[in-house]
Amino acid sequence: MKDFKSLLADYKVIFFDSYGVIRNYNGLIPGIRQTFEWLQAEGKSYYVITNDASRSPELLVESLHRSGLDLIQPDQIISSGMLAKEFLDNKVKTGVVAYLGTENSAHYIEHPGLEIIPIQQVNEKNMDSITALVLLDDEGFEWLDGLNKAVNLLRWRTIPAIVANPDGAYPISKQKVGIAIGGISWMIEKITGKKFIRFGKPDSQIFMFAWDQLRSRHPDISKKDILMVGDTLHTDILGGNKFGLDTALVLTGNILQEDVDTRIASSGIVPTYICHSAVIDNQLNIYNK
Amino acid sequence: MKDFKSLLADYKVIFFDSYGVIRNYNGLIPGIRQTFEWLQAEGKSYYVITNDASRSPELLVESLHRSGLDLIQPDQIISSGMLAKEFLDNKVKTGVVAYLGTENSAHYIEHPGLEIIPIQQVNEKNMDSITALVLLDDEGFEWLDGLNKAVNLLRWRTIPAIVANPDGAYPISKQKVGIAIGGISWMIEKITGKKFIRFGKPDSQIFMFAWDQLRSRHPDISKKDILMVGDTLHTDILGGNKFGLDTALVLTGNILQEDVDTRIASSGIVPTYICHSAVIDNQLNIYNK
Amino acid sequence: MKDFKSLLADYKVIFFDSYGVIRNYNGLIPGIRQTFEWLQAEGKSYYVITNDASRSPELLVESLHRSGLDLIQPDQIISSGMLAKEFLDNKVKTGVVAYLGTENSAHYIEHPGLEIIPIQQVNEKNMDSITALVLLDDEGFEWLDGLNKAVNLLRWRTIPAIVANPDGAYPISKQKVGIAIGGISWMIEKITGKKFIRFGKPDSQIFMFAWDQLRSRHPDISKKDILMVGDTLHTDILGGNKFGLDTALVLTGNILQEDVDTRIASSGIVPTYICHSAVIDNQLNIYNK
Amino acid sequence: MKDFKSLLADYKVIFFDSYGVIRNYNGLIPGIRQTFEWLQAEGKSYYVITNDASRSPELLVESLHRSGLDLIQPDQIISSGMLAKEFLDNKVKTGVVAYLGTENSAHYIEHPGLEIIPIQQVNEKNMDSITALVLLDDEGFEWLDGLNKAVNLLRWRTIPAIVANPDGAYPISKQKVGIAIGGISWMIEKITGKKFIRFGKPDSQIFMFAWDQLRSRHPDISKKDILMVGDTLHTDILGGNKFGLDTALVLTGNILQEDVDTRIASSGIVPTYICHSAVIDNQLNIYNK
Repeated sequence: MKDFKSLLADYKVIFFDSYGVIRNYNGLIPGIRQTFEWLQAEGKSYYVITNDASRSPELLVESLHRSGLDLIQPDQIISSGMLAKEFLDNKVKTGVVAYLGTENSAHYIEHPGLEIIPIQQVNEKNMDSITALVLLDDEGFEWLDGLNKAVNLLRWRTIPAIVANPDGAYPISKQKVGIAIGGISWMIEKITGKKFIRFGKPDSQIFMFAWDQLRSRHPDISKKDILMVGDTLHTDILGGNKFGLDTALVLTGNILQEDVDTRIASSGIVPTYICHSAVIDNQLNIYNK
Repeated sequence: MKDFKSLLADYKVIFFDSYGVIRNYNGLIPGIRQTFEWLQAEGKSYYVITNDASRSPELLVESLHRSGLDLIQPDQIISSGMLAKEFLDNKVKTGVVAYLGTENSAHYIEHPGLEIIPIQQVNEKNMDSITALVLLDDEGFEWLDGLNKAVNLLRWRTIPAIVANPDGAYPISKQKVGIAIGGISWMIEKITGKKFIRFGKPDSQIFMFAWDQLRSRHPDISKKDILMVGDTLHTDILGGNKFGLDTALVLTGNILQEDVDTRIASSGIVPTYICHSAVIDNQLNIYNK
Repeated sequence: MKDFKSLLADYKVIFFDSYGVIRNYNGLIPGIRQTFEWLQAEGKSYYVITNDASRSPELLVESLHRSGLDLIQPDQIISSGMLAKEFLDNKVKTGVVAYLGTENSAHYIEHPGLEIIPIQQVNEKNMDSITALVLLDDEGFEWLDGLNKAVNLLRWRTIPAIVANPDGAYPISKQKVGIAIGGISWMIEKITGKKFIRFGKPDSQIFMFAWDQLRSRHPDISKKDILMVGDTLHTDILGGNKFGLDTALVLTGNILQEDVDTRIASSGIVPTYICHSAVIDNQLNIYNK
Repeated sequence: MKDFKSLLADYKVIFFDSYGVIRNYNGLIPGIRQTFEWLQAEGKSYYVITNDASRSPELLVESLHRSGLDLIQPDQIISSGMLAKEFLDNKVKTGVVAYLGTENSAHYIEHPGLEIIPIQQVNEKNMDSITALVLLDDEGFEWLDGLNKAVNLLRWRTIPAIVANPDGAYPISKQKVGIAIGGISWMIEKITGKKFIRFGKPDSQIFMFAWDQLRSRHPDISKKDILMVGDTLHTDILGGNKFGLDTALVLTGNILQEDVDTRIASSGIVPTYICHSAVIDNQLNIYNK
């Protein structure tokens, strides 16, 4: 048994999930600021790895700063939206890209040479010029019209369909969730039979993106030097484990203390550690070490 | 090679799918009236077995009559909505039943002792009194609000969730489909982890319902006397085959002539016959007989 | 709170699952004989509804008699193997039927006009004459050879593939399970893309088969007069509920007392009652009545 | 329309799938040697990216050399087995690792500090010391016994389960396939509910592994300089596309010329190019460029 600070001390770099670890629907997790102050004082590197494609890193950081956490900068944010952008850069060089999401989310996919249109502007005239469909966010469009247009676009055009957030739902209060764009993508994929490309945890590519940025600054870093901290077994922990990182599950988000053993045993997804929270003076239960 | 009339002559009872067999987005299939006139003249029984829970048998028949087909009566319609009704009659005797669909679809689930409310009326005050959720139709509610409410209701209450139409999509024009309530149910089921109860073809229970009605009128009938005519492999043909009926696939709906062999071979779902249409003077290709 | 006897008293007919309710790997559930003695004394009807296609009703009954339960006769057994037989009778009238299973299981599918061969006898010479593949039991063939032959048969021939037991695994001791033929069918279905026809709970057709037999003896019976007793949520309880029956979950098989609430809440499959066992003097917790 | 040589000329690095591209069940694809001679003469880099965990890179190369292709060396092979090894290196440092596969495949997972045992040696005495299960190859063990032991091990122990080849089946002759270890993993995952970790195309991690090796030798290389050549849409093409590479589908393996358009349209997986084969003088159809 040791505290979360002693655990962090064993690693050079910490990857944090955002929602459920740093903040939740009530704002910042109480005390989390201390953790980042300590990391800065110790000269440790940290990144936020998030399945959030609703806003740019700048806007995500602005929101954290407004909440009182000014210790994270845009270049420390790795979001699944950035992977969608990289995909379009490499693979979709021309034409019109249709998207589901808000205008804020659409900034991810702006690119010289591409025209970007919201799903509601897809029509019989422009359909043949569309070269990709990107699902960014569950807001910013009328569902009945937008989802039906997405289905018909994929039936008509053989084009890449990209989902920038694989999550099925996200918490909006202690009791409620909202359907996320990842959940919507399951339905469209099953109806159309078309294979979507999904970016975001647990997929390795977002970890690789962070890992590449990290190595460009710290060439001698090893995967053994990194700890992934998250609140969700199927994204943060499964993805971190698969990428070869040690993982710490915190209980300030998706999983309650009383359910944690059952959830691990029934899924077979095993974090290296289980901790009450990512606050540094918190009690730590060492698990399976 | 014989015509569709000679095929019908071999059976005492014909089950017809509606959409894609009797009518489509353009109205009645040209010539289909002859088929029903001939069946009546020959004294053969026929039923329409449909995955349509959007309207009562009376309203479904009214619409056929308006199209010019007055040879089908409400007691010849077996719809998946009737199965949902039977389920509630047997299993949900009290409380409030929430539904997704139009007011027309809600007639299916009206029952003495049950209060019926549309999904948008579910709120924190009445949530604890809800005893079932029924997905009837994809229209009649605002999707973003209604689908999120359905997800949260199933997270909060351990109650039966019933889908009265298992189809994922339905054709609305030659080129376009609309997402059907069955497709929506896949998403909600995957997000919540709750097991839905699905009624409608290919499930056996709708065939059994028709079979029971048929036997009450014709006690000596055998499954070998029945032909199921449909345009969809995964519902009409799979369901008919499994129930033990001979099946005829017609090409006036979901499947094009040029794709039929591939679709059968890749799915492994084999109709007893393949026919151009259900119009009686049509050419018939005998398949696998 | 009342005992299991008072519960049975409310119904005219009881459907029992076999494994986990009447017996388990240790033999008969202690005291279960009293239940059947009481049912006989009271003149109530009872049936065993089992996803077991490994042996004929006669052999299943013989085994119960050897265990000391001589109060069940072959005509009270409804097994998923009988559904496979009915399917072949109605739909596969000629040719060669290949099967996976023991010789005992093959008795189900013997039929005048059909040649029956075990999977290991399928070869390049007879492959073109094979008209159906039936998965009956996980024993009686060499897995590597048999499963590969089944996959290649379905790739080569467009024929019905029938699974007479949908269960993925079955208990062989307190700690161990064995992979059942239903589990094997999931793998073959996913590899080949061919749609299997599955018989057995939770599918309605096995309940309808029992219901038809019951009505032929008791024409005035109603679904409200029947109680389904089982130990498995996804087969006995889901299937019974969907068919419109009241259901009682017993805790002598698949589900432990401490897990029962979680299992019901996470699956959304709700039995009408939960009971310690199907032994008549046992304590009964009334659930959701 | 240009030939395959002109296509290769546009890239600095070529990634080849092995089976269906370089060789098949008949040995080397006729003429493929010329391609590698030309690549060597031009000073281009090439790698083989294979979902084969049955043998070490040394043994895979030895087999290519015996077939007459001595232009590929072990350090040009990236196999999914190497990813399984890296995972164990990073995440499973102690205890006993059980595996399914031949002794040849087991070389991948040998590691100081780990004891490696074949699945048949798992028993009640050593079960509690097992720290991972690795599925390497479909041969080298008795299926009935081995698969049941794998299921029971995962029910008893909450440990990582790794699959080093995600393919469901592999061709063994023009007409026949064999069930691959990836197909077996689907069944075990569904029966146990435990989440497997899968390595191999289309997963990004194998591409990243190759990309990291490539950059250590050629630091200035960009993803735009690489062409992935493969015969399978769901692995080679989907994985290459997602990683951001241009992709060429060849028709010497899984897909026939007459099916290629249907397969692309129905899956939505779009290669940058379609070519008859990877032989350099072959005709090339430019697709969607």
